[in-house]
Formats: sequence, structure tokens, C-alpha cells
Amino acid sequence: MTVSTLPRPTVLADLRSDTVTTPTPEMRRAMAEAAVGDDVYGEDPTITELQDELARLSGFEAGLFMPSGTMTNQVAIALHTRRGEEVICAEGSHIYEWELGMMATFSGVVPRFVPAPLGVPDPEDLRLAIRRSVHQSPTGMISLENTHNKAGGTVIPLEVLAAAREVATSEGLPLHLDGARVFNAAAALNVPLKEITRHFDTVSVCLSKGLGAPVGSVLLGSAAAMKQAHRYRKMMGGGMRQAGVLAAAALVAVREGPARLAEDHRRTQRLAHALVEAGFDVNLAAVQTNIIYVRVPGAQAQVDAWASKGVLASALGHDSVRFVLHHQVDDAALEAAISVLTA
Amino acid sequence: MTVSTLPRPTVLADLRSDTVTTPTPEMRRAMAEAAVGDDVYGEDPTITELQDELARLSGFEAGLFMPSGTMTNQVAIALHTRRGEEVICAEGSHIYEWELGMMATFSGVVPRFVPAPLGVPDPEDLRLAIRRSVHQSPTGMISLENTHNKAGGTVIPLEVLAAAREVATSEGLPLHLDGARVFNAAAALNVPLKEITRHFDTVSVCLSKGLGAPVGSVLLGSAAAMKQAHRYRKMMGGGMRQAGVLAAAALVAVREGPARLAEDHRRTQRLAHALVEAGFDVNLAAVQTNIIYVRVPGAQAQVDAWASKGVLASALGHDSVRFVLHHQVDDAALEAAISVLTA
Amino acid sequence: MTVSTLPRPTVLADLRSDTVTTPTPEMRRAMAEAAVGDDVYGEDPTITELQDELARLSGFEAGLFMPSGTMTNQVAIALHTRRGEEVICAEGSHIYEWELGMMATFSGVVPRFVPAPLGVPDPEDLRLAIRRSVHQSPTGMISLENTHNKAGGTVIPLEVLAAAREVATSEGLPLHLDGARVFNAAAALNVPLKEITRHFDTVSVCLSKGLGAPVGSVLLGSAAAMKQAHRYRKMMGGGMRQAGVLAAAALVAVREGPARLAEDHRRTQRLAHALVEAGFDVNLAAVQTNIIYVRVPGAQAQVDAWASKGVLASALGHDSVRFVLHHQVDDAALEAAISVLTA
Amino acid sequence: MTVSTLPRPTVLADLRSDTVTTPTPEMRRAMAEAAVGDDVYGEDPTITELQDELARLSGFEAGLFMPSGTMTNQVAIALHTRRGEEVICAEGSHIYEWELGMMATFSGVVPRFVPAPLGVPDPEDLRLAIRRSVHQSPTGMISLENTHNKAGGTVIPLEVLAAAREVATSEGLPLHLDGARVFNAAAALNVPLKEITRHFDTVSVCLSKGLGAPVGSVLLGSAAAMKQAHRYRKMMGGGMRQAGVLAAAALVAVREGPARLAEDHRRTQRLAHALVEAGFDVNLAAVQTNIIYVRVPGAQAQVDAWASKGVLASALGHDSVRFVLHHQVDDAALEAAISVLTA
Repeated sequence: MTVSTLPRPTVLADLRSDTVTTPTPEMRRAMAEAAVGDDVYGEDPTITELQDELARLSGFEAGLFMPSGTMTNQVAIALHTRRGEEVICAEGSHIYEWELGMMATFSGVVPRFVPAPLGVPDPEDLRLAIRRSVHQSPTGMISLENTHNKAGGTVIPLEVLAAAREVATSEGLPLHLDGARVFNAAAALNVPLKEITRHFDTVSVCLSKGLGAPVGSVLLGSAAAMKQAHRYRKMMGGGMRQAGVLAAAALVAVREGPARLAEDHRRTQRLAHALVEAGFDVNLAAVQTNIIYVRVPGAQAQVDAWASKGVLASALGHDSVRFVLHHQVDDAALEAAISVLTA
Repeated sequence: MTVSTLPRPTVLADLRSDTVTTPTPEMRRAMAEAAVGDDVYGEDPTITELQDELARLSGFEAGLFMPSGTMTNQVAIALHTRRGEEVICAEGSHIYEWELGMMATFSGVVPRFVPAPLGVPDPEDLRLAIRRSVHQSPTGMISLENTHNKAGGTVIPLEVLAAAREVATSEGLPLHLDGARVFNAAAALNVPLKEITRHFDTVSVCLSKGLGAPVGSVLLGSAAAMKQAHRYRKMMGGGMRQAGVLAAAALVAVREGPARLAEDHRRTQRLAHALVEAGFDVNLAAVQTNIIYVRVPGAQAQVDAWASKGVLASALGHDSVRFVLHHQVDDAALEAAISVLTA
Repeated sequence: MTVSTLPRPTVLADLRSDTVTTPTPEMRRAMAEAAVGDDVYGEDPTITELQDELARLSGFEAGLFMPSGTMTNQVAIALHTRRGEEVICAEGSHIYEWELGMMATFSGVVPRFVPAPLGVPDPEDLRLAIRRSVHQSPTGMISLENTHNKAGGTVIPLEVLAAAREVATSEGLPLHLDGARVFNAAAALNVPLKEITRHFDTVSVCLSKGLGAPVGSVLLGSAAAMKQAHRYRKMMGGGMRQAGVLAAAALVAVREGPARLAEDHRRTQRLAHALVEAGFDVNLAAVQTNIIYVRVPGAQAQVDAWASKGVLASALGHDSVRFVLHHQVDDAALEAAISVLTA
Repeated sequence: MTVSTLPRPTVLADLRSDTVTTPTPEMRRAMAEAAVGDDVYGEDPTITELQDELARLSGFEAGLFMPSGTMTNQVAIALHTRRGEEVICAEGSHIYEWELGMMATFSGVVPRFVPAPLGVPDPEDLRLAIRRSVHQSPTGMISLENTHNKAGGTVIPLEVLAAAREVATSEGLPLHLDGARVFNAAAALNVPLKEITRHFDTVSVCLSKGLGAPVGSVLLGSAAAMKQAHRYRKMMGGGMRQAGVLAAAALVAVREGPARLAEDHRRTQRLAHALVEAGFDVNLAAVQTNIIYVRVPGAQAQVDAWASKGVLASALGHDSVRFVLHHQVDDAALEAAISVLTA
């Protein structure tokens, strides 16, 4: 991802990512007042509260707080695999595309791709991708991503989740969800989180994306799995001391953030249609939550030009620009941005 | 790969692979008479002779004998990469498809696929696949395969090799050749081996495929690279003692084998056309050396049926059967096999 | 490390570790008011300020904030080594003893131990431990730990650092310092931090130990090394978003913490002598900073008994109890603890 | 290990290692006549015969042939461990000292040393070395070496094996034997091989040391373990094609070699005593099989001097010279060597 480094004296809207939000006053107050302890000893009450809250929402026995979604995903891969195995995943998955080979370096495993138009694999392709021959790497796990970032923040239908679960169960394989934006998926489907998460053995949830927390992700799973995850977290350097200061902000995000996502999605539709009307090449079928990809030749130059006028977006690759809506872009900021983008 | 385990009282032709050949009387005699020493100490004269002979033929400074092509390829990957990097390769490459995640487990690297119709990538796609962003795995090397096994024993044209070299050089990346069957490629192109190998930083050559040696592969490269390769070979357990007994047979294979490959290719054409005439689905454009893939629903059952009549082939996947010609299937055996296959 | 789980209605003094301190009011205020940005994009001004401050204090070009000292150490190991190499370190080093095999799993390297009475290796032993033979793992780096946790918080004399630097330089090897408690070493030696850090290629500093920050460590080194470290940090999942909330507290710790360490050391001497007078087996020569090890048969039972009276310590192994002083144990708390411990 | 490279016109005795033997006429004949097949397909009858023979001798269900003892050991480590675990082993173990960090690079595990005077660990030390705390790497396996190369070819008493087995069983840990020279141990103890091997979950046996085969080692264990070992062997590049040519020689070695070892041991005693009488510093208590270590300042210069007179030994480290007896040093050669060494 290339980010503009031009001066930006007045930012109308930072649409590069939903990770750029800054903590709200409520979050800052919660951090200042947080009850904390040494979480490496399991004694931080706010961390425990956050983990329990997410476990409750998702229907899992336990959760484990970590500094990033890369860590929660990679710990899950370590949990489910042995060296030399394959991880079945959709093309363009974050666990491969943006996690820098960590599945290979730490867990010693390789990806096995299945096609996934709009981020949704055909469950039958998942089954066909499973390897068992002594001459090939055996399959260690299946991983889905919902919403799927690179496909455009797209949502996997519940029946596809159920069918993928059926494949995993019948083949005796664990099923992981990279749910960095699973709250967006739940909002788009208008279902409780549990309706999505119940199909998985482990789920990784990010608190610093649409929900707005400054830092943190939580891995969810069985109590036994989280006990093992604790060791892998420590190996990766994710054992933090008085991390309750982060958890305090994250708890605010978990309690207040989900209800705001529908607004982000509504504004995303508004922006997507405005871009199409202005002649931009947007696949509207892929605009399902808070992300828009626009096909633009000379993406970086276009992004730099917009940045000079106060609207920040991300150039990803040669001809692709990404916009992401979040709770710190309100209607007024959005309309100001649209004026710039469609000028 | 699934291999028939039915009884086969009379094998007319073993067409499963060119790895199934047994040593010729010349090879057996050479083994029995080989001058040997402890190659872990670098004192086996026959190993040294073999390595020098292949270095001379391929135009490299040095070679290093190993027990398999998987080891020569994986040592090359270790030589060229650091942990967390990407290996650009064609889809279906042997280094990924049949080397069981070793690139991840040993070297900590992941594959980055480029499309490769008939095993031939577009050099421009190689360039576009290179990653340099701090947010992604950097590219560590580019690997080609020639002939390309899974694509059907297909040959990469010399001008594509030159263009790939140009990409590698201009981008400062090492270029490796999985040349398990590079002698077949040279035979098909009717050029000296050097015309192919000169484009690469390292080349892996198998002696136990079309050339007919019982065991062994050689990695070729600079003297400095082979010195480093020596350590990786030892780590993988490839340091062998009086390996000269294998090298003696391999020297016979290197000296007598290449001249026989044109015959294998001629017989492969004969078989391919016979199969097409009999109504089998064969992509003749892909039949360029000694391999034929036939699309057959129920591949395993078909292979079992043929095996029961003395013709052995390999079922690869659900609907694909592979035939490979080699010097121990002569014209008479081939005609007998064709009778069975087209019955 | 086994931690008591008995009820502790009134804790007189928590002497288990200097990691257990909770943020001061100044730190909480700083967190609440911190200027933040997305540090994955390098835009968090408070993180940048913290990194620059530590780089200035230690005399390095650059620093990189991470969630833990395990991560800063393991990123340093990844920076300096290639797979299959050896890391020369003192016996009982934190990088081996408490970092759960991460040097093997991530970097593919093994430790090579040198004797280190009181945590201080003989520089000549460092030189003798270097491997260069083609039959052995080559040495990748040398790592020291100062103060040395497992040896009792002991300090490496400056002349030993200079001699170790000389070995590293003359042998062309990088020299890393696990400086989790390097501020304690500087306080004990009564020298500026730079007098210690200037001998090293990279230094890892923890902010959440004696300095009292809630979370965080910083790796220090050349600008080029920190650029590469950025990638390894991301691989391990240490890329955090608005981490400035942590950096704000850490900046308070860096500015106010070092001056308090001499008090911790004075109180440690007080406690050590009180324990000796009460008949406990303490090696006073090893009590140089803020840590005391007491040899006690049935360590866990003893620790549980003290915990029931409000004094917390750590049982490490079968017959060893550790006390660690920190700024949240003042003179009154210490005297209360001594009454319990010597009762 | 540094090996002399001086010219040696007439070698009286090559005492560098028992790996330097060249194949006997019987072995060469066996190679020339071997029935072979493609062992990657499990079709080489001579390989199967060798594996079965060693399984029978050692009392295991199955065996798997590999090109070296490094590979059989490292495959065993991979079988028994998961990433981040510890391998308990004696100091100076071959799996650590001479296998170049492969346990870290491939399996992601670190060694945990126990003291082992004369290569024999105290079983209670094995038990104390076991880690279970969530803050430390858990123990994955225990590995012994018998005879122990670096300790001087020393033998572990049967009662120590039984006690180590008891520790492993009661702690639920697998127990591996690096039995590179286990036939020497059986000869020294004058017991059937099974009396040693029955205590272990897996045993690695080298055929190219005292037994005299040109190449090869066999890993022994349960049928299920060997099935899994097959995959790791393939990953490391140990899948060989018509490896029966090697197995044929190895079968001769297995059938004829063991009976000769007592002679090697007798000659080793003769040489050791001659060296002591000549004033050399030899620990006779450590001379139990076919290896002698002599403490000599300036080891390399001394080895070079002897080499110039036709007696080859190995300088290991600064002040240590190793002699190893084997079946190609007969009494006459030994006496000639002694004349040179004691001149």
C-alpha cells in the first residue's frame, strides 16, 4: 500500500482505511480510569472483561487479546496446523496477501488457493482443494475472510458459511474466520454476530477498524485452544503487561461501535453511487459494506491529486484506489469529499 | 499421485513416470567398479567427476550432488531467499505442488503465482508480481520450470528465458531453474544445454528421470553459491558418504542418456496421436517432450483397469491420467501398450 | 514461573516483578491527552517522539516501538541471522529461557551457550564459541543481557562490554543487547545510558519494567536496521494502530523513571540484608540492582505462605524465590514486607 | 572438523572416522545385482528388505531408509515435536552439535541440555529438565545418543536406559535414540540390539559408520510413525528412486558388520594404551568402543604432522584429536600407525 506523503494542510476526509480513526473522548476517559494488572500473569481485569464480552457476543468459550489482527490470525494458523501443511483460503486473503509470509516463517505452512469471486468461495472448491496424498502437503485448515477486504468488503452469505462448515466437519478439518470486519458483515446481514461466528472453530476480530478502538484484536475459540494460543502469543511477543488501558478503549468500541456501522454502510453507498455517476469504474455489486474499490489508471497520481485537495484514499497496485468509510467521516465530511472527488 | 496396487503379473509398459527406470548393465558395472571416498569430506572422486561434468555441460562454475531434485530445488530456494520473502513461480510448479511445503518449513517463504499457460509465464507478469512495499512480503527470487511437468512436459522458448533473465537482472533478483527435465527441453529445442542454463543463477538437474540414473540430482551455480549450498545440503541430511557408487551410475546416465531423449519424444508423439485417434481428450499442443496428460473422468478406475492389463499410468487428480515415456519402453512395448489403451 | 492463586485480601507489597506496576496518574493523563495517528502508516506523532527520545538517549539513529521485549529481542535476532546459524549468549539468557523457542521457530537459529558467572561472560569465551567450520552451524550474532535477569539483576562491567565489542568487531559479527533493564544497569554504574549502549549494534529496551510504563519496548539501531525491523515487527503482529496512547505513558516513564531506580536499588539492598540476617540463603554478590534470588527448598509453598500474609514473590524452579523492587513499593511497604518475610 | 589437506602419498591408516570405509567386494557385487524399483512409490524390494531386517533386529514395526543419520534424526525430531518446544538432550549431542541448527530451521525447536558425564545423563536430570509452565517452551521429547560420539564413543548402561524410559513414560514424552553407532553399543554390552532399542519410541541407525555400508541410515519406529516420517523424508529431499542399489550394500553391512565390531573395539584398546604409554593424554575411562580422544595442544598441527607420515586423524577443536577404528584398519595397519604415532 502506498500512502501519499504530500503535505495536507486541511484534511476534509481520511478515507484511506477504517484503521485511521482516533480514540473518542469516551475511549480516552476509559483509558485514563481503567483498572489494570499484569496481563502476562492473567491479572488485568479490563482485558478479562473485554475477552469475556467478545466471547459472549460470538458464542465462544474464551477470547485472547492481542496487539493486531495479523497476530490473531497467525496464532490461529499455528493452532490448527503442523509444519508442511496447506491452508486453504480464498485468493487475495489477508492472511496471505498482507501478513508477509508469516504463515510460512512461523508455522511452516503454505497457502492453497481456491477461487473466490467477490470473496466467496464455492464450498465444493474447498472440498476439492483438500490434499491427502502422501506425495503432497496435507491440508491443515480452511480459512475464510468475512467481510473480505481485497474483494471490496464483501459479505459471505450465511448458507455458504454453513456449507463450508459442513465441508470442514465432514473432512475433519478446522475452520477459521478472519473476522477483522466481521461486525460489518453482521451489520450488512442484519444478524447477531453469533449467526456468523457459530460456524467456525476460531474467529479473529479486529477492534481498531470499524469499531474504532485505538489498538487491538481478539482471537476467539474454545478454552483449550485459547490456552494454547497464549503460548503462541507469547512467542510472537504479544504478551503485554497493563494492556487494560487498551482494553478499556476497546470495550467502549465493542459497546458503541457496532450500532454505527449501518451508517458507515449507508454513506459508502452514497459515495459509490456518486463515483459511478461521475464516471468512475466501480463494481457496485462488490460494494456491500464500508469499502469501495475504484479502477483508475495511474492510481498513485490520482490519489496524490485528491490528497492535495484534502481527500485521502489508498492506491493499491497500479490501477486501483480504495475508499473506506468509518465513524469519523460524517455526512458533511462525506459531501465535502464527494465534491472534491467528482470535481 | 495415486498408484495402482492391483497385482500386475505381466507389465507390458510402465508409463507412470520416467523415474521408474532401473539401472542399465553399464550403470551396474560402473557402480561395482566406482572409485569412492567420503564425500562429506569432499573426497569422493566420482562425485567430483560428476559435478564437474555437469558444470561443464551447463556452463557453471560448480555443481553439488544431492539425493533428489526436491533437495536441489529447496537448497536453491534457501540460497536465494531470506525468511518471509516470496518466490515467484508458475502455477503448478513442482517446487510448490510436489515439494510438500518445504519452501515454507525450511526457508520460511511463500509462493507468489503467475499465470503460465503451457508452463510458460509472460515475463511481464513476472515483473508485475514483484513486491517491494513495506506492507508486503518482498520478492526473494524467481523460479522457472523447464520442461514443466504439470503443464505436460512443456518447453519454455529461449526468448522467454532471455526476457525472464532481463526482468531478474533489472530488478536485482536471482533466477532459478527447476531443470529436473532440462535435458528434455534441450533435446526438444535441439540446442546445447548451455543455451538454456546460461540464463539462470542456479539450475537443478535430475539424473534419475529421463537420463535413467538410479538416484541423484545436481545443483549448479557459482562456486560461492555451491559452498553455501553445501551447508544447506548437510542440514537437510543430504551429506552422503561413499556416494560415488551413485555418481558412477549417474555419469553413465549423463553420457548416454541425452542422446536417447529424442527417441522418447518421438514415441510420445506416437502414443499421443494414437490416444487422440482412439477418442481420448489430449491437448496435443502440450505434448512437446515425453509426457502426455489425458483428461479422463474416473481417472483412478481407468488407471486400475489398464494396470490389470499390464499398462501402468498415473492418475493425478480426479480426471487426469499421465503417461511418461522413457528409455525402458521401446517401440515394441509401446505398440503393445497402445493396443491395450485403445482397445 | 508459577504465580500464587491464593486469595490475597490485603497486598502489602507485590515483589513478584517490576512488570506489575500500574500507570501513575501522570501516565493516565498523558494517555488521555495523547496526539495519535495510525502508526502502521508511520503517522503516530507520540510514537515517533518516544522512538526519537530513546534513540537520542542511547546514541542510535532510530528506534522502533513494539508491544514487548520478547518482540524487540526476536526481531533483533531475525535482523542479524540467517536460518541455521547460532546465537552466542550467556547461559540463562532471557532470549532463550523465557522467549519460548521463538529464535528457532521464527528465525531458525539455535543458541550456543557460554558460561556467564553472575551473567558476565568472559570475552575470550565469546571468541572461542564462534563457529566457522562447514560441518557446524556458523555463528550469526552475539547477544548479551544487561542487567542479567536470571543471574540476579547483575551488571556487566563497562570493560567487559568493550572487550565483547572488540571480539564482535574483529570477527565481523553483530552484537545485540537485551537491555530490558539497561536503565538499571546505567543507574548501578552511574553512567549515562549511552556509555553502555554505544558498544552494540542493536539494543532492546523495556519500558514496562523498572521505568513503570504499562506496555512497550523499543528496539534501537541504525536507520537501515529499523527499516528492516519494521517488516519483522509486522510479521510478528506488532504493527499497532493508534499506539500513541501507549507511547504517551511510556514517554512519562522514560522521563521520570530512570531517576527513581537508585531508590529501588537502595531498597533492594535493605531487603537483601534483612533476608540474610533472618537466615535466608542469598548471594549478596549477585544483588546489584533491583532483584534478589533466595534459595528456599519448597519454593512454591513458601511463596504461597507469604502471599497469604500479603507479600507476593515469585517461585522460579524448585528451590528459588525471586523478589523484585520497583517504584510502587515505598519504604513503608518494604518495611511491612520485611516484617512478614522475617517473621 | 578440520581435515588435513596435505598430500598423503601412502596412507598407513585412515583413523579420522569410521565413515571413511569403502565398500567391500561383497557390497559392490550386491549393488551390481540388486533388485530395484522406484522407492518413492514404495516399490524397491531391496529397500523393503533392508527396512524389514532392521525392524526385526531392533524389535520395531517398521523402518525407513534415508541418505544420512542427520536426516533420520531430524525426521524423528519433527515426528515428536511441535514448533516452539524443547528437545532434552545431553550436552554435545550430535543432533545439536553436528546437525547445523536443523532442529530449529525445520522443526522450530530448541535444545535443553542436561549434564552427561561420559555421555550418560542422570535420569533425574532428564526429569528436572522437563518444562510445563505457560511461560516457557514445553518439552517435546527426550533424545539420547548411544554410543555417544563427542563423549568418546561411550556406552549408556542398560539400567540408565530403563530409567530414562521410565521418566519418558511417566511424563508422557517420546524418547528417541540417536543410534548412529548403536551396534557398537550392543557389541560393547554384549547384548542383542533389541535390549537397547526396546526402550525407545524411535531409533536412528547408521549403516555407513562401523558397519561399513557406503551410504544410508534407517529410522525405526511404529508403522504409524514411519508413515508420517515418509512425508518428512520427502520434504527434506530424502525420497530416492532406485535406492535399492544402496540398500543392497547396506544389507551386506548389516549382516556381516556387527560381528566385526568387537575386533574394532579390541584394536581401539590397543591403540589407546599405546598412546597413554607414549605419554599422550587419553581418558581411558571414556574409551569403551571404537573412538579415542586425545588432548593435544595445537591439535591441527599435530594432525598435519601425522598425516604427512601416513596416519590420518581428526583435529576437533583447538586441543583435541580423534581416532576412530573400523574394519579397514587391520592389526598390521594399526601397528604401523602406532609406530608413527608413538615415534
